This record gives sequence, C-alpha cells and structure tokens, in this order.
Amino acid sequence: MDRRSFLKTSALGGSAAAASTLAAPVYAQGKKTLTMVTSWPRGFAVLDDAASYMEKMVAEMSDGSLTIDKKAPGELVGALEVFDAVSSGQADMYHSADYYYINQHPGYAYFTAVPFGGTAQEVSNWYYHGGGEQLHDELGEIFNLKGLLAGNSGSQSGGWFRKEINSADDFNGLKFRMPGLGGKVLGKLGASVQNIPGGELYQALSSGALDGLEWVGPMADERAGFQEVAKVYYTAGFHEPGSALASSVNLDVWNELSDQHKAILRYASMAVTQYQLAETLANNGAALARLQSQGVKTLQFSDDVWDAFGKASAEVMDENMGDELFAKIRNSFEASLANSAAWINKSDGYYVQQRVRVLGG
Amino acid sequence: MDRRSFLKTSALGGSAAAASTLAAPVYAQGKKTLTMVTSWPRGFAVLDDAASYMEKMVAEMSDGSLTIDKKAPGELVGALEVFDAVSSGQADMYHSADYYYINQHPGYAYFTAVPFGGTAQEVSNWYYHGGGEQLHDELGEIFNLKGLLAGNSGSQSGGWFRKEINSADDFNGLKFRMPGLGGKVLGKLGASVQNIPGGELYQALSSGALDGLEWVGPMADERAGFQEVAKVYYTAGFHEPGSALASSVNLDVWNELSDQHKAILRYASMAVTQYQLAETLANNGAALARLQSQGVKTLQFSDDVWDAFGKASAEVMDENMGDELFAKIRNSFEASLANSAAWINKSDGYYVQQRVRVLGG
Repeated sequence: MDRRSFLKTSALGGSAAAASTLAAPVYAQGKKTLTMVTSWPRGFAVLDDAASYMEKMVAEMSDGSLTIDKKAPGELVGALEVFDAVSSGQADMYHSADYYYINQHPGYAYFTAVPFGGTAQEVSNWYYHGGGEQLHDELGEIFNLKGLLAGNSGSQSGGWFRKEINSADDFNGLKFRMPGLGGKVLGKLGASVQNIPGGELYQALSSGALDGLEWVGPMADERAGFQEVAKVYYTAGFHEPGSALASSVNLDVWNELSDQHKAILRYASMAVTQYQLAETLANNGAALARLQSQGVKTLQFSDDVWDAFGKASAEVMDENMGDELFAKIRNSFEASLANSAAWINKSDGYYVQQRVRVLGG
Repeated sequence: MDRRSFLKTSALGGSAAAASTLAAPVYAQGKKTLTMVTSWPRGFAVLDDAASYMEKMVAEMSDGSLTIDKKAPGELVGALEVFDAVSSGQADMYHSADYYYINQHPGYAYFTAVPFGGTAQEVSNWYYHGGGEQLHDELGEIFNLKGLLAGNSGSQSGGWFRKEINSADDFNGLKFRMPGLGGKVLGKLGASVQNIPGGELYQALSSGALDGLEWVGPMADERAGFQEVAKVYYTAGFHEPGSALASSVNLDVWNELSDQHKAILRYASMAVTQYQLAETLANNGAALARLQSQGVKTLQFSDDVWDAFGKASAEVMDENMGDELFAKIRNSFEASLANSAAWINKSDGYYVQQRVRVLGG
C-alpha cells in the first residue's frame, strides 16, 4: 500500500469535512496561485507554447481567481526533475512529457507516445473515451498526481543526422538522443541512447557529444537551430506518432481545489491541445520549406529500416509486460487504437488518398 | 452598408459607456443565462452531444454564473431557423452547422466543410492559426454574430443508398439529401438534392421521399436508424472531410458579456471540439461493425466516381468566386490547407502507411 492510498482511504473514512474546512481559508482570500515547473526553456516553440496557453486560459477563465506561475528549468528545479518535484509537493503542477519518467513507471510512456502508437487524434480518442484518463489517474495515485494532458506535438520527425541512414546497421554505435520507449528501441539497434533535456541539445549536437537527435518537428526544430549543425532530416519517425504533453497536478493540491477550478483546469487542458496542436500543424509546412532553403535534405527511412524499428519495438513493449499496470495500460490503448483505426482508415484515410489522387499534391 | 455595421459604428462613436452601464445590472444579479437554439433533436449522437458538452463545460467553469439553456428544434424555432433567430436576437446563441446557411452567404460553407476540403485537424489549423476565426467574425458582422466553432464530426461517410453506385450517372435523378456546397455538386451530377433536417430524415428515407442520404458517420447514423431502411453504405465521401459545428452568439449579447464569460465560451468551444470529436472517432469503429452485423454492405466509390465529384466540385467552387468575401475565405482556406498538408503528408500520413505495412491491419 502506498502513501497516497493511505491518505485517500483516511480522507474517505471520515475526515472529508475537515479537509473541506481546511481548504476554505485559501478561497476566502479570493485568489490561488499554482506554481508550475516545466521542462521547457522560455520561448521553446510548441512545448513552452502549450504551457503558456495553459497559464493564459486558466487566468482568463477564472478571472484571475486561479493563476499559474510558470517556471523554466533551473528556476526552481531542473528540466527532468519536475515530476519528482510535483509528486513530493515541492511544486503544485508541471508541464512536461510523461515519457521522460518511464524509470518511475514504464506505463508513463503511453501518456506521451509509444513506438508504432497512435496519432494525436488516436491518443485523444483513447485518453478521453477509451479509459486513458482513468489509467493516468491510476498511475498518478501511486505518485500523488492528478493527470492532465495539455498539448500535443503531432507526429514527430524521425530526427536530425549528420549522414544518411541506409540500413538499420547505421544506428550501431550512433550517439543519439531519444527519450521514452523509442530510445530503448534504438538501443536494441546498437545506438548509444541518451535522454538530454531540450535546452541542452543544440550544444550537445554542436560539440559532437551527440551524432544525431530527434526533437519535435519543423516548427520547434527550426527555433532550436539544429539546421545549423546537421543537414539530414527524416520527416517521419516510428517513435512518437502524436506526443501528448502532460500538465499534471499534485494530488493534495488538486483535492483542495474548488469544483470550478478543477473544471477550469481540465477543460483548459483540452482547449490547449486543440489550440496548440493546430498552431504547430499550421506552421510546420512553412518551417520545413525554410529548413530546406537552408540546405537541409529531407528523407524517409527505407522499408527495411522501418521493419527493423517494428521488430525492436515489439521486443521492447513485450519486455515490460511483466508489470501488471503496464500490461493493463497497453491492452487498453491497443484496443482503442484498433477500434479508432477501423473507421479512420476507411473514412479520413481513404478521403486523403483520393484528395491527393484527384487534386494532386 | 448593412444594419450591423451601422450599429457598430454608432456604438464605437460614443455610446460605448452607455452600453456598458446597461450591461452592468445583468451582472449585479450574479447570473446570466443564454438561450441556445439548436438544429438537433435531443439525444442525436455527435451533434447534440457537442451542444450538450458546451452547456456543461460553460456551467461548470463559470460556477453557474453563465448558463446555457439548450432548445431542441421546435421548442423555440425550427431546426434550420436558428441562424435567423440568433441574428435577429430572438435567441442568444445557436448550435448548428453553418453550411446550412449558404443561402445567407456561400462563405458559410467553409465554417462546416467544403467538397475536397480539410480534415477536422486541417480545419482547426486554418480556423485558429490561418485566419479562419477572423473571417468567421467578418462574415458574422454582416449577420450580427460572433462566430465560435464547437465540435466536429470527423470525416463524414459517403452516405446511405438503396442500390450500389457504379458510375456517376447513377446520381442522375436520385432524390438525395446533402446540404452545403456538396449538395450543389451532386446537383451537377443530376441528383434532386434536398436539405432536410436530421430529425426528419428517417421518415423521409422510409417513405421513399428520399432514395438516399448522407448524415454523419457510423455512431450518429446507427442512432438515427438508417440501417433499418437502406443497406448500402459508402464509408468515405468527398463532401465533408471534417465538418465543424458552430455555436455562434448574437453579437450584441456577446459584446455585453464580461471578458471572463467571453473567455469561458471561446475556450469551452475548443474543448468541446477536442472532447466530442475524440468520442465520435473512438466509437465509429465499433458502430460500423454493428452496422455490418445487421446486413449493411460497406463500399468505397470508384476512382471514376471520385473524378466526377472532383470535376463538379471545382465548378461549384468557381461559380461562387464572383463574391469578394467568398473568394477571400476560399483563398485563405486553400493557402492554409496547402501549408498543413505539406507537412502532414510527410509525417503523420507517411507514418500511418508504414504502421499499416509493418503491423498489418
């Protein structure tokens, strides 16, 4: 039994009235501020955009009665320390990508992206209407967190390389940055995989500490400047077909919020995904064209390389199936994905094929 | 000069302070209710779902200080009279599909869906980050409306037929329901096209008043019961690749709302799209399987039929280009779509192809 379950049981057992009395004085003052630690340097496109929209929407919808005080890495804790900081109560909430925390629990991979997983839409289908949100909370109870997804990168690019990848063997010995279960897949192909925070990647690639990296997609990658130090860019990747961002809240803090403030945080998180993902996808095409005009060569991995990704991905997923909660999350996600895809491939997917065929382009 | 521009100029000219004084007593009472007329019978899947989520989210986020009183067709006005009712001030806001109102202005087609137009994601990219929202407001000023999109059906099915469509000639003389510019396209192919409200479609198809119809997609269509009276179902269509739903507000009512209530309505509308579209796409696959188990045959139109749709669609779009605002909206939309697709086809699109190839299915 973990600490959190004990506290919850206790509150349900009889101290609910007391907890509600304790919470009241905070609201008597009329305003509440939540400290939000993030994994993103200020101004980092896509990621810090999503965190900023969360801050703005919550303030506007609550008329300032609930505000978020957003902290960049290093202002309170480091980029990848935000999960522990919020879990322990050092900060009230975070904005990050949950797959950075697969060492806390491998199931967190599903709340960002998994190899050969869902597109942004398929992830939302599962999260809101396939049991994902409840499983996020089940994981969160172990770590004293209320899970919220707020933002999505869309399908992430295959990454930046100094040389073309002509076969899966080219990953052997490559010093490459890729977080989450995708990184473990490249490890199976012999890569030396590192999880380095976004704010440190440009320097690592410039210095040769990394041979290559994946970050997000054209809009975010251009802002980070990787085109200055690498010229080969794979546009599609196996590892993050639609990466959700998380904005989870310390569970004690969450439980003390009014129903109104809980509603504002939850619906704001949905609006952030709607608004920020649209911004990213509206801008990626033009960003890609600018990258190409700076001498970046865009490519797709060959079918043979995709087959190697597929084989190694299945191994990595299966290795985690001994964990009961991981297995429960994986099974839930895959059932939802199969159901979503059964319609999407026949409607949206077929339509786009015909649009390309009839109109060209 | 239209009525609305006159009113606006007048308010800006000197009576802004007076208007604000008039608005104040409403807020002094602490609560405001907006009457929302809709085009959807209560319980109509997808459409009434979106309207209901709007009602729920606004009430929860405002702690009841702003509530929506949702009306089904016939309770205040008819299903397709909601636009005029809100424009005139008879009701405060509507939930409907703006392409029902192309006779008011053909540009409204773009705020639902146009033939060979954008998927749900591509529509959002344009609306929020490609100038769409501003153009919705520009159209809205003519009709005294503040535009809001709230919900999306996803890619709509090609429709229900009593017999298979083997060539474009099979549309000749067919009594078919299809609203918007898509209906005008089928008219070019010789169909007798009617725009009948959703609540009356089952009866029209049963009685033979219609030979066929398109409504939404498996989840909504199954609930409407069309499988009981037609057995041929085309899963992809040219006409509505991602139909947005609109929840626009009378502009005088909007202007009197507090900044907080405006923010709640606008962000709630984004959250509705995120939440309801995910629900629809999470459920369509299972609904399709149930339809098939009831003897429904699912098909795709042939390339020849798609080519005929393409040719007629281009004609319909071009016929409206004499209207300056239509042309402005079309050009804005198509520029955004080209930019979106330039990335999406190389990332998300390529990824899904590889996922299908590597994993099967």
